[in-house]
Amino acid sequence: MSARPTPKVVAFAGGVGGAKLADGLMQCLRKELSVVVNTADDFEHMGLHISPDIDTVTYTLAGLANPETGWGIKGESWNFLDQVKKLGGPGWFALGDRDLAIHVLRSERLRAGESLTRITGDIARALGISASLLPMSDDPVQTKVKTAEGLLPFQDYFVGRHCEIAVSGFVFEGIEKARVTMQVRNALDSGALQAVIFCPSNPYVSLGPILDLKGMKAQLSETNAPIIAVSPIIGGKAVKGPAARMMQELGVEPSAKSVARIYHGVVDGLVIDEEDKHLADEISALGMAVHVAPTLMRSREDRKALAETCLRFADNLAKRGIK
Amino acid sequence: MSARPTPKVVAFAGGVGGAKLADGLMQCLRKELSVVVNTADDFEHMGLHISPDIDTVTYTLAGLANPETGWGIKGESWNFLDQVKKLGGPGWFALGDRDLAIHVLRSERLRAGESLTRITGDIARALGISASLLPMSDDPVQTKVKTAEGLLPFQDYFVGRHCEIAVSGFVFEGIEKARVTMQVRNALDSGALQAVIFCPSNPYVSLGPILDLKGMKAQLSETNAPIIAVSPIIGGKAVKGPAARMMQELGVEPSAKSVARIYHGVVDGLVIDEEDKHLADEISALGMAVHVAPTLMRSREDRKALAETCLRFADNLAKRGIK
Repeated sequence: MSARPTPKVVAFAGGVGGAKLADGLMQCLRKELSVVVNTADDFEHMGLHISPDIDTVTYTLAGLANPETGWGIKGESWNFLDQVKKLGGPGWFALGDRDLAIHVLRSERLRAGESLTRITGDIARALGISASLLPMSDDPVQTKVKTAEGLLPFQDYFVGRHCEIAVSGFVFEGIEKARVTMQVRNALDSGALQAVIFCPSNPYVSLGPILDLKGMKAQLSETNAPIIAVSPIIGGKAVKGPAARMMQELGVEPSAKSVARIYHGVVDGLVIDEEDKHLADEISALGMAVHVAPTLMRSREDRKALAETCLRFADNLAKRGIK
Repeated sequence: MSARPTPKVVAFAGGVGGAKLADGLMQCLRKELSVVVNTADDFEHMGLHISPDIDTVTYTLAGLANPETGWGIKGESWNFLDQVKKLGGPGWFALGDRDLAIHVLRSERLRAGESLTRITGDIARALGISASLLPMSDDPVQTKVKTAEGLLPFQDYFVGRHCEIAVSGFVFEGIEKARVTMQVRNALDSGALQAVIFCPSNPYVSLGPILDLKGMKAQLSETNAPIIAVSPIIGGKAVKGPAARMMQELGVEPSAKSVARIYHGVVDGLVIDEEDKHLADEISALGMAVHVAPTLMRSREDRKALAETCLRFADNLAKRGIK
């Protein structure tokens, strides 16, 4: 591996929303950005190791993502899946023809003993991604959702059941043994670090596993850079995915304020949408800086604008000595 | 597995030419045909177990084969391979999007401990193939070609080098330990057996491994049914593949007579093309029945006609007590 420049900003991301802000940050920072990605949704399907969040971030940063779905590759074809069904194989998980390449290459290299970190970095470089893309861990962690039917693996809940079964909690299997990678630790340890940004991802199942890794919260509390989060909840709704629904099922009001409560004690500031500016005072009262800005990312320009907002907000917090 | 009818005919086949005659035989015999397929070209590529001859026979019997190449699936797309190259992966072996399905499903099931025989049978049934498709063995055998550069794995020679390096012999690694499957033994043991037909496949690297399996020649010599072969060499040339070229490099004249010499002592009769009828007497003189017929299979009807020729020829030999 070639030497990477010291990152100035570390972003934590899950899938679609996280990938969009990561893209905005990369537009601002190029090589000075490291993106730490959730791997607790990773699973094995048809003998292939699938890393949904890494794939979404990879495709988004490479400019390959399907703009309609947010996941997968634009202009995808589905001939593999069609043939799998003809052969009597499983058709419930949408594996596109182009998308398969990343799964097959990754699976082969993992089986040969290479680390997910190395493989992810090689693929990102092959696709011309300037930021460092870092899996949160090279050790297996598997999110399971607690339901009335028992523990369900995340993909069974998310894809197989379309999130249509109420959740009462989450288990990140393997989390107590999973180590934060050296690359992630070094990125957070850097003296040049200017900000840690929690992208607008699901706070429970996307950023939750990253934050629950052993030593992660301690390391975050020791870093000198401000830590800010962007609320994935706008006007009581999640832009994408089951975050708001999960809040409701857990008996928590779906709102930016609930996001603030989840991240309380970890982040120094929260970016909330203009639609939620009436919540600013209540969130401030929790002891957290608040910044109100447009947070919905419809275009690539929106992503960059939100990234600039986050960087300015972090900069202001640093100047005010908040951290 | 459901009970199969007792096969009346067992065909031995390699790739394209073998698959065509197997299709002709299946048109005549439906469920009363078993096709024993070479697996010594099988190899691992990108972590996938690829069985080129089984795939070609499967696609041909399912009516899915690409009529231009003889291998692969008609109307194939190549988006996976395109993306693999973009990710920095290997592009030398043409893996089509639809074709990938069989490799991924097979690899997963093999890794889970299932036998190639069972997997191949399930896939054949899913595709509506009436004949029994039987890998020659569930144990690994790997063809290597002897060259001035040393031993080359078959796919390196065949695909990687386009057969453009002279061969001086063949090694079937693992052949001494590989067992003929119970299914193949039972098919050949059947009291109802009316013929064993060696399809017009490469006698060295397609049928060679099948015949070199431990006990195979002994079992063939004990069967009551006539054993006939169809020459893959017409007018000194192979219809497809490197058989004629290999003969030349081995110092053997590429001809139907050389095919007869290779199969001498194993087969009771040889079908040669009309173009080679001048060789009939010389081949008869080797102590082998000869039948002259059109053997080039351009259409599905040609395949059926050649199959009928073979079945009649075998029938005549049986009536004449030749076996």
